Amino acid sequence: MSSWLPVPQDSHFPIANLPFGIISTTSNPDPRPAVAIGDYAIDLQVFASAGGFESVPEIQLHLPAFFATSLNKFAALGRPFHRLVRKHLQRILRSDTDLPSLLRDDKARRDLVVIPRSEAINHLPLEIGDYTDFYAGKNHAYNVGVLFRGEKNALQPNYTHIPIAYHGRASSVVLSGTSIRRPWGQVLKDGAPAFQPCEKLDFELEMGMFVCRENHLGEPITISMAEDYIFGYVLLNDWSARDIQAWEYVPLGPFTSKNLGTSISPWVVLADTLEQARQPGLPMTNPIFPYLEDDEGATIPIVELEVEIHTAGGHRALLARTSTKELLWSWRQMIAHHTITGCPLRVGDLFGSGTISGASVQTEGSLLERTKNGTQPLVLAGGETMGFLRDGDTIIIKGRANVEGSIIGFGEVSGTIKPSLDSPPVEWMLLNHLKA
Amino acid sequence: MSSWLPVPQDSHFPIANLPFGIISTTSNPDPRPAVAIGDYAIDLQVFASAGGFESVPEIQLHLPAFFATSLNKFAALGRPFHRLVRKHLQRILRSDTDLPSLLRDDKARRDLVVIPRSEAINHLPLEIGDYTDFYAGKNHAYNVGVLFRGEKNALQPNYTHIPIAYHGRASSVVLSGTSIRRPWGQVLKDGAPAFQPCEKLDFELEMGMFVCRENHLGEPITISMAEDYIFGYVLLNDWSARDIQAWEYVPLGPFTSKNLGTSISPWVVLADTLEQARQPGLPMTNPIFPYLEDDEGATIPIVELEVEIHTAGGHRALLARTSTKELLWSWRQMIAHHTITGCPLRVGDLFGSGTISGASVQTEGSLLERTKNGTQPLVLAGGETMGFLRDGDTIIIKGRANVEGSIIGFGEVSGTIKPSLDSPPVEWMLLNHLKA
Repeated sequence: MSSWLPVPQDSHFPIANLPFGIISTTSNPDPRPAVAIGDYAIDLQVFASAGGFESVPEIQLHLPAFFATSLNKFAALGRPFHRLVRKHLQRILRSDTDLPSLLRDDKARRDLVVIPRSEAINHLPLEIGDYTDFYAGKNHAYNVGVLFRGEKNALQPNYTHIPIAYHGRASSVVLSGTSIRRPWGQVLKDGAPAFQPCEKLDFELEMGMFVCRENHLGEPITISMAEDYIFGYVLLNDWSARDIQAWEYVPLGPFTSKNLGTSISPWVVLADTLEQARQPGLPMTNPIFPYLEDDEGATIPIVELEVEIHTAGGHRALLARTSTKELLWSWRQMIAHHTITGCPLRVGDLFGSGTISGASVQTEGSLLERTKNGTQPLVLAGGETMGFLRDGDTIIIKGRANVEGSIIGFGEVSGTIKPSLDSPPVEWMLLNHLKA
Repeated sequence: MSSWLPVPQDSHFPIANLPFGIISTTSNPDPRPAVAIGDYAIDLQVFASAGGFESVPEIQLHLPAFFATSLNKFAALGRPFHRLVRKHLQRILRSDTDLPSLLRDDKARRDLVVIPRSEAINHLPLEIGDYTDFYAGKNHAYNVGVLFRGEKNALQPNYTHIPIAYHGRASSVVLSGTSIRRPWGQVLKDGAPAFQPCEKLDFELEMGMFVCRENHLGEPITISMAEDYIFGYVLLNDWSARDIQAWEYVPLGPFTSKNLGTSISPWVVLADTLEQARQPGLPMTNPIFPYLEDDEGATIPIVELEVEIHTAGGHRALLARTSTKELLWSWRQMIAHHTITGCPLRVGDLFGSGTISGASVQTEGSLLERTKNGTQPLVLAGGETMGFLRDGDTIIIKGRANVEGSIIGFGEVSGTIKPSLDSPPVEWMLLNHLKA
């Protein structure tokens, strides 16, 4: 399938993809739904206003979903609806469209609906209810375990039985491109607590999944129904302050070390788009309980991932290549486990996969693993060495799947480290008082 | 100050209190803001429609706050606004009101605005953005530490330096009166993982605090500004599955053991109402970092708390009496710490204090402590014994402060344990398919 719109050969967003997002433009600053194709965004609000969905009554019935500032309404309409809209858009955008008058051959309408992505401003695609970060990257869990407990006890005894996770902070999820300020925090230094700017600022290469359906309190979602709750996927970077985490996490888990920012890519690749990219992840090494057993196979959409750094010193380097094949638990298993005690999911909830690392060098999804907690600095081009992230460093995560010969890409999620506030008490008080 | 409305002597809601909530009635099922006084609710939407705020232009400007289904808009208007509205309502409700025609002497209006609380249905007072549960009850942390690590290592080394907390689950916060279903989950039994209904279901006696102001990512809230972010307080019961928690919590903290339900009381007592009830909590035993040092004294509104059980077997017993005096960290310190790495707070965020226990017997805020992890069952009236919660047990937490001789009460938060689903896979699949 090809489109009458020019799509570069290596584009992440061919007509076979059509990921959904929220955009605004300088001429129309209201955030609104769109899909990405090649270097363009299709403004679904304008398209809907212009009667673009009139030929499909099932879509036309739910037009308000395209007049919203987030994708929550659209997501809540369910996977059959998402499928219908994507198929209709593909029908209109394909080279041999049988509805050329709807867009291809109507220049006036095209000028309004088809927006160069360089002119579009992205916004968070969904209003996030709750954010949960899993720990399903088994090699990551193992690598971190080796660092802190040695090879023998690297994986905790519960790890291969439970999709381990913690509740994250929804308010600190931000869009790709948002700078992350190096935080101040409490760390343990030479055996005593110290208050200082974070010295072990790290990234975590993850996938994110958005939820599109609700269950009620006290009613777990069975694994056979879980697929229906998956709206789509994004790239996710869970920025982490390792030194703050090490001191605060006992006994209730990471807290301020994780809520300094979590970045996601702007375009949500629909679950349906990746149906054909599903394969098993890592094999189970022990029997699991029936509520986690997946008759259809615990498969995961396979996404090839890479993380790049653009250093403050002007160098670029590929830090790691890995893949979602390295996950132990599938998204369906995560959903079944998340709700096993009766937790309600809501439309717009975000799951993180946990850091994804391979089993070999240069497949690590964090600097903690790659530099062995900073003890083995990386040597970049030009002899530049680095342990954890420095001010001015930019981390860029990219991801793409392959479906029937087409690239199904995610674009990227990036973020640059800003220096910490210099003299915290004075500057913060000033900031707060200015806002008062 | 007394009211022309009859208020029983021991009412939690005298005219000096006027807590805010969201109600609906059978004749008007739209949720809307109200205040509680005695056995009545004052319908603020009807009162506002009838011109009740016309004499105060600053309030009249923000009338949409009273035409909302949650208190978020009202909360976002800030503490000076809350004060103004409460003062105006007190002026109108007091016996010697100088504005008798606004309500007291207008029977037709009174019949619409003043609703017997027995006819009002309460709803969650705010839309909760994120929910964070702290661990500021030092005796609780100590008691639990003794159970699992012995007296010597009871408190973790970070405890007296950091207001420890974890991110909780906002979607599972429910209103007082909601039944809680005993969950299935993974536990460790005789050294091996097992999947079964929870056998150690517990309550946690806590206070909750709602946030009414936002800060930006990367901009910590200084302790001197923190008071402005406090909307008000509720009672909170963080239901906990202790056996599930024990198996899942390493290394990322509690997850499914906590998202089975968190109950709160319906009426938010405004922060201003408790200004005069503030006293220091437990003394610090070591120096703390400047960002946690409170020039105005780390005081806490002192609320006397009690928890009662109505057992399935028909007995009633007082399980504990305690007080917020037993908290080590103040709400201001919690806010300063929560945002120290730059986490944004949003209007409607909920903080839990952590379980509040005294240092002596019958002051414990959980059955885990009271029964020594179930090993020392309680003996209730009639010889009934209990370890953890049984199906049909109801837990009721009550709280009240004293301000200048007036009771400032919170009402109660209650919840009854429903039996677990019998045969999980079949029943759950049925439930899910019925909703499909």
